[in-house]
Amino acid sequence: MFNLNINGMLPKNMEDRGKLILRDNLKEIEEILNHRTIPKNGLDDEKIKIFLKLLSLMDTDKDPKAIRIGEREGRISSKIQEELVSGFCHGVGRSGNLIDPQPKAPGASVMYKLTNNILKSFLKNLGLNVYSIATPVATGMSIALCLSAARKKYNSNVAIYPYAAHKSPIKAVSFAGLRMRLVETKLYEDAVKVDVGDIEDAIKKEIKSNNNPCVLSTLTFFPPRESDDIEEIAKICDEYNIPHIINGAYAIQNKFYINKLNKAFKYRVDAVVSSSDKNLLTPIGGGIVYSKNKEFLNEVSFCYPGRACATPIVTMLVSMLSLGLNKYLELMKKQKESRKLLNNLLKELAEKTNNKVLNIKNPISLGITVGSNPVEIAGKLYNLRITGPRGIMSSDKFGNCYLGNYPYNYVVMNAAIGVKNKDIIVAVERLKNVIS
Amino acid sequence: MFNLNINGMLPKNMEDRGKLILRDNLKEIEEILNHRTIPKNGLDDEKIKIFLKLLSLMDTDKDPKAIRIGEREGRISSKIQEELVSGFCHGVGRSGNLIDPQPKAPGASVMYKLTNNILKSFLKNLGLNVYSIATPVATGMSIALCLSAARKKYNSNVAIYPYAAHKSPIKAVSFAGLRMRLVETKLYEDAVKVDVGDIEDAIKKEIKSNNNPCVLSTLTFFPPRESDDIEEIAKICDEYNIPHIINGAYAIQNKFYINKLNKAFKYRVDAVVSSSDKNLLTPIGGGIVYSKNKEFLNEVSFCYPGRACATPIVTMLVSMLSLGLNKYLELMKKQKESRKLLNNLLKELAEKTNNKVLNIKNPISLGITVGSNPVEIAGKLYNLRITGPRGIMSSDKFGNCYLGNYPYNYVVMNAAIGVKNKDIIVAVERLKNVIS
Amino acid sequence: MFNLNINGMLPKNMEDRGKLILRDNLKEIEEILNHRTIPKNGLDDEKIKIFLKLLSLMDTDKDPKAIRIGEREGRISSKIQEELVSGFCHGVGRSGNLIDPQPKAPGASVMYKLTNNILKSFLKNLGLNVYSIATPVATGMSIALCLSAARKKYNSNVAIYPYAAHKSPIKAVSFAGLRMRLVETKLYEDAVKVDVGDIEDAIKKEIKSNNNPCVLSTLTFFPPRESDDIEEIAKICDEYNIPHIINGAYAIQNKFYINKLNKAFKYRVDAVVSSSDKNLLTPIGGGIVYSKNKEFLNEVSFCYPGRACATPIVTMLVSMLSLGLNKYLELMKKQKESRKLLNNLLKELAEKTNNKVLNIKNPISLGITVGSNPVEIAGKLYNLRITGPRGIMSSDKFGNCYLGNYPYNYVVMNAAIGVKNKDIIVAVERLKNVIS
Amino acid sequence: MFNLNINGMLPKNMEDRGKLILRDNLKEIEEILNHRTIPKNGLDDEKIKIFLKLLSLMDTDKDPKAIRIGEREGRISSKIQEELVSGFCHGVGRSGNLIDPQPKAPGASVMYKLTNNILKSFLKNLGLNVYSIATPVATGMSIALCLSAARKKYNSNVAIYPYAAHKSPIKAVSFAGLRMRLVETKLYEDAVKVDVGDIEDAIKKEIKSNNNPCVLSTLTFFPPRESDDIEEIAKICDEYNIPHIINGAYAIQNKFYINKLNKAFKYRVDAVVSSSDKNLLTPIGGGIVYSKNKEFLNEVSFCYPGRACATPIVTMLVSMLSLGLNKYLELMKKQKESRKLLNNLLKELAEKTNNKVLNIKNPISLGITVGSNPVEIAGKLYNLRITGPRGIMSSDKFGNCYLGNYPYNYVVMNAAIGVKNKDIIVAVERLKNVIS
Repeated sequence: MFNLNINGMLPKNMEDRGKLILRDNLKEIEEILNHRTIPKNGLDDEKIKIFLKLLSLMDTDKDPKAIRIGEREGRISSKIQEELVSGFCHGVGRSGNLIDPQPKAPGASVMYKLTNNILKSFLKNLGLNVYSIATPVATGMSIALCLSAARKKYNSNVAIYPYAAHKSPIKAVSFAGLRMRLVETKLYEDAVKVDVGDIEDAIKKEIKSNNNPCVLSTLTFFPPRESDDIEEIAKICDEYNIPHIINGAYAIQNKFYINKLNKAFKYRVDAVVSSSDKNLLTPIGGGIVYSKNKEFLNEVSFCYPGRACATPIVTMLVSMLSLGLNKYLELMKKQKESRKLLNNLLKELAEKTNNKVLNIKNPISLGITVGSNPVEIAGKLYNLRITGPRGIMSSDKFGNCYLGNYPYNYVVMNAAIGVKNKDIIVAVERLKNVIS
Repeated sequence: MFNLNINGMLPKNMEDRGKLILRDNLKEIEEILNHRTIPKNGLDDEKIKIFLKLLSLMDTDKDPKAIRIGEREGRISSKIQEELVSGFCHGVGRSGNLIDPQPKAPGASVMYKLTNNILKSFLKNLGLNVYSIATPVATGMSIALCLSAARKKYNSNVAIYPYAAHKSPIKAVSFAGLRMRLVETKLYEDAVKVDVGDIEDAIKKEIKSNNNPCVLSTLTFFPPRESDDIEEIAKICDEYNIPHIINGAYAIQNKFYINKLNKAFKYRVDAVVSSSDKNLLTPIGGGIVYSKNKEFLNEVSFCYPGRACATPIVTMLVSMLSLGLNKYLELMKKQKESRKLLNNLLKELAEKTNNKVLNIKNPISLGITVGSNPVEIAGKLYNLRITGPRGIMSSDKFGNCYLGNYPYNYVVMNAAIGVKNKDIIVAVERLKNVIS
Repeated sequence: MFNLNINGMLPKNMEDRGKLILRDNLKEIEEILNHRTIPKNGLDDEKIKIFLKLLSLMDTDKDPKAIRIGEREGRISSKIQEELVSGFCHGVGRSGNLIDPQPKAPGASVMYKLTNNILKSFLKNLGLNVYSIATPVATGMSIALCLSAARKKYNSNVAIYPYAAHKSPIKAVSFAGLRMRLVETKLYEDAVKVDVGDIEDAIKKEIKSNNNPCVLSTLTFFPPRESDDIEEIAKICDEYNIPHIINGAYAIQNKFYINKLNKAFKYRVDAVVSSSDKNLLTPIGGGIVYSKNKEFLNEVSFCYPGRACATPIVTMLVSMLSLGLNKYLELMKKQKESRKLLNNLLKELAEKTNNKVLNIKNPISLGITVGSNPVEIAGKLYNLRITGPRGIMSSDKFGNCYLGNYPYNYVVMNAAIGVKNKDIIVAVERLKNVIS
Repeated sequence: MFNLNINGMLPKNMEDRGKLILRDNLKEIEEILNHRTIPKNGLDDEKIKIFLKLLSLMDTDKDPKAIRIGEREGRISSKIQEELVSGFCHGVGRSGNLIDPQPKAPGASVMYKLTNNILKSFLKNLGLNVYSIATPVATGMSIALCLSAARKKYNSNVAIYPYAAHKSPIKAVSFAGLRMRLVETKLYEDAVKVDVGDIEDAIKKEIKSNNNPCVLSTLTFFPPRESDDIEEIAKICDEYNIPHIINGAYAIQNKFYINKLNKAFKYRVDAVVSSSDKNLLTPIGGGIVYSKNKEFLNEVSFCYPGRACATPIVTMLVSMLSLGLNKYLELMKKQKESRKLLNNLLKELAEKTNNKVLNIKNPISLGITVGSNPVEIAGKLYNLRITGPRGIMSSDKFGNCYLGNYPYNYVVMNAAIGVKNKDIIVAVERLKNVIS
């Protein structure tokens, strides 16, 4: 396809060496498309940039011989914009279907297809043997896409939502035009959870009223809200034959969640939604939707009205190419260690201050009870340049995901993928100073 | 805020000159935030890049002193990703509201606010005295946001849609969970249009059935479908007190549409949706929603579930800063001239080949009848590297937006903003060769 | 050499189209090395960047399989540095010879060879049928290289220099370790020139004293110093068999100089030195040395002690690739027109103010007499942000290149290649204000 | 000087936070010019880029209000060129003096001055309390500058050169127009060295013939050539009052050399030349000249004919800013360890293969004797992608720096600053395979 003719410009041995080095460099790029799976070892940024550049040179707006008389021709007013979309000015998707090839953009179409291929192999390597699509919108909007697909395919008109206090999924239900039926949480010692029986009751009631319910369950959340028992919910959805969407925003980074997902996948799960930024270390803007059910994923893709900015897809591809599988596995391992460190430090602090670490099953986040106003504590930490901790009053129904009073005031800290141990140590130290 | 201390490093007059030149350069950047309106003359890319870089250095993920223990901290795996989002790794929006400031991202929040300010002043300069928001999704999804807001605010459950054959708005209705009621088009000589009376009838029927209709009208489309009479529709919506959303995908680039919009704005228009790429020369991915009704726009913004990728917003800001008002007005003028040129060339060609240019009111696109198979003609043009022409069979109900048979086979060509006269000339020449 | 395997990822027609567009894009890059001449039409920056990137991926410091245990391995501390040398961390040249291929840098060696090839074809297209080398140092140091080569090859030990008041060539003589023998200028009406007979006398004297003189003549200078009569000097050098180096700093941009050079080339010219920045619109730092005498150029190249930064060479290559021949010819044409405009405006101003435009043969620069202190005038212009004018007192021996008193105070302005007519107009206007 | 007015765009606490983060980011940049010394900890590339950009915005070719009618106005034909010189299109230096401020380029002048300031503080931190200038040419040409200065200041006309087989310094002598007088090496067991008495004899002879000799000694070289005894040479030069230039190409990276330099500095050393790429991890192209004698350095700077490309200076500044002192000290420490590792591995290999490691005082490079043809061995290693080893025949007078036969065939390997232990291990392994 491409050949640099340096023949006769150098002594033969240098010419050969030059070609050999160039070959070996370009081979790394070729291999991406030869394999279409996540590389074991990441590529350096230079190689990724060349690769993306070459792909974008397949799009029609880059055609040096094109005559453009359409109404949208990827025209831009500044080179900055080209950089912002990695050259994919025509975006991704077409009006028919998000993952359909876009005739004006063969390069962007290859890029998107490749991202989905690599994503599939990435998830498989983590133990998730599923179909998947990268979505050009973040978790909330991706949930809306799934709910819309559920309505389209199964006439779902009400989303049964075991209560978790996050606005985005709640708004996603509303955006997709479904009614929401909350199922209240209960207190199980420290943990706030939803009784699976209550979910079943909700399903029955809706069916009785001739509605078509689906369930939007929550796998990943902050303490003291524990994960929904997605395996049991999946069983019930199976039994009642109703769609089941799982909000697994942070699910990919930790085996705890992956195992839960695999158990649920044995029963009814139509789609899981995870965040690209929370799991794949991308900037905010993309989502990952995956499922054993390929047809449902197609339906999700089909729901998207029109084309979308290519950037969220490119950032996912870049993450997978630049990290490679090995680096990601290493990050997962470090996350576990950091979580352990955070646990130890908070336990130590709790003992010294007559508090306790909340007893919640969560492989990422931890809560510690505090004597004084937790909101003020979080505010003080914010002013000390600690970003991330949440301070929640026992009476804060929204924060606690619990309609009654929670037994404690507490502060939540996280050891999510990518966190640095140094930051954990300093954060707990400053928390200590603030509450002492 | 910032000072480069070069004191004593150069002879005084050179030091002063250096500071003066730097001052005058930085002043252009400062003026952006001092004025918060569209500049008369565009800025060069270097200045825009520095400006965006400085804004992104306000975000918490750029804080050199921050300790990060949240679950999403704008962590990324490659510098490429930072470039792809102009440094705004935290995206835009927060779970509460798309246009709300995001506490983790003061810089991105300023960027978004500024974009909306400049957008307002840009539209005002074009004669559109409206409120507006830049949306991080393209036209189709932006229409879905508006429909969702209509349901939220007015309980709209059915969208009355004067038929126009574009999949994106149709899917937007579906995505937002509204039922769609099509109103059929009729033939008025060459033009395909919807009778306003038929729209009124549709409204009445829905109201009678105790539904809450809204109208999704179409301002910009391909020949032979003409613009909906949005003024009359706005009057009717006023009368029946029902929401009215206008799909004005290409509306901003031509006074013909702007005048129509201003007439409609006297009555009921809840929101107009325009494309950022079709009007503002950005890559695909953003939308512009505007209205006299500020409250409704807030509702639209409120519908968005979660945060979004910053890139589509940044590309709009870049377009407005790099073009400036004068350059945009010049582009509008050129678009008019190009449209005239296309008209003349097609008329000439029509005369020579016993065809005719369709008599359709459209300030951008033109249709010419053809003797042979128009789909094949478009295919041949595609192979000749002409991108954009549409060839439609008289019997193609979807393509013609007309359920009966349209009287002609025809080919459509466009003189949209940014088109080059050279391309128009070559395109018509090649069309001539193909049909001769 | 390289193939992107997108087989089966898209519908066949899109796959073909994508490959075709990529092919046509890459072809522009391939053609550079297939032709190795200046392209008629320039390439866009993106293509040039990819091309340079691919070349740099041939250098051994980019070898992904290399084991590095040398003492200089192109190691760098920051990616910024790689950008600053276009990836050519090993520089150009080797200790043996500047234009010899560098075994550690096949890519940089190709780049340098190609630059010289293209330079040759560029000069040929301008009418200069010569051998040439791009030097990684600016005019002054390039003159030193030529003088050093003259000493090496012909034992030259004294440079006969028809006086022109520019420090760089004077220092070049000194740097190369030759003695300088000035030949004084004389006044011919407005013009300051050197009598060719005086040059011959100087040669004779030096030969008589058993020295080996060479001549360093000046083709391009500011009014009122006119060009040396290089044809006559070349004849004399021929006759006495002594080396002749021509300082033609601005010579390439105007046919006036090119014609003079071609006349001189019939006799003895060992090398001409031109500036890359003054003629080729590069940043400062490179030189162009050319001659009919290939052997002498090799000697020049051989004189350079060690390797050099690749950047000055790359900037020349970039200029030639980005402009292309047609754009350069157009710039030359514009330069002529701008010079005419400057002449007309200054004549007009002279008439109005009882001054005169100096009658000097110079196709770029013009001098106008002034009544008041010209140094103060230039200072005022500098403060008005006019860069470039020189104000010279009649008594300034250095500025005038004349040891006696020059008849006028005057100000010099230039219409060099790349100047904008707008700037000429404003500059003369402000001059008018300053002297009125 | 600069202020981003975001007042009123965000809630007050977010506005304050945004400003605070921006402040803290910009402060790192401000501190560079406030301190003008090498920072303890390096800055990230983003900060360095902004800093360089701001400096370049002081140059007159960036003046948005300038009217340009000079003959060289920093005009360029492509943005690529601007990147290649970090925006400093006017280069560094002026015709009068390399380190003089350039009136057209206040920004580049500050950049150059700052580089020299930081360089001085960097050297001081390494124990070299000297004056210094960064030169825009590599070691060879920098030596030529020093020799030219010696001639200018002291009428030196012959360079006494204790023979070391490196072409660049030899050509530097020639380029500067001095005669070279070689002093032959002798064999001291494994080591090849020059007898200081022989140097003194050479000085005497030249003085006797009424010449003005200077000495160009060599501090850093490959085994088996050992360092010249620069302390003793400096004493002799002191005694005879003749200039002494030291070629210390790799001297800065190791205390062994720094200590030797400090001992020599007590006597006569006019200038030491070190390489920027070999010591400071820059791409090839710059030099470092330093001395206790500030006046002589000025003379060196004064010798440069004209301006030069800014890039070699910028790369030095970037290295010092990006590494910071701590990282450099760490690299020095690692270099020592790597040298020890190389020594151990080669000793082990020597024992196994009946060879020996040459007994040469050299803190960077090591030589191992080999039984078979060393040139072939090096060739095989080159083909195995090992870059850097030198294989020298006992009979190769140039390679050995010795006019007689050296007792051994040998291969040289280096553990220079920046080398990776992994590479050392693999290189010795492959050497083992090749010689076994």
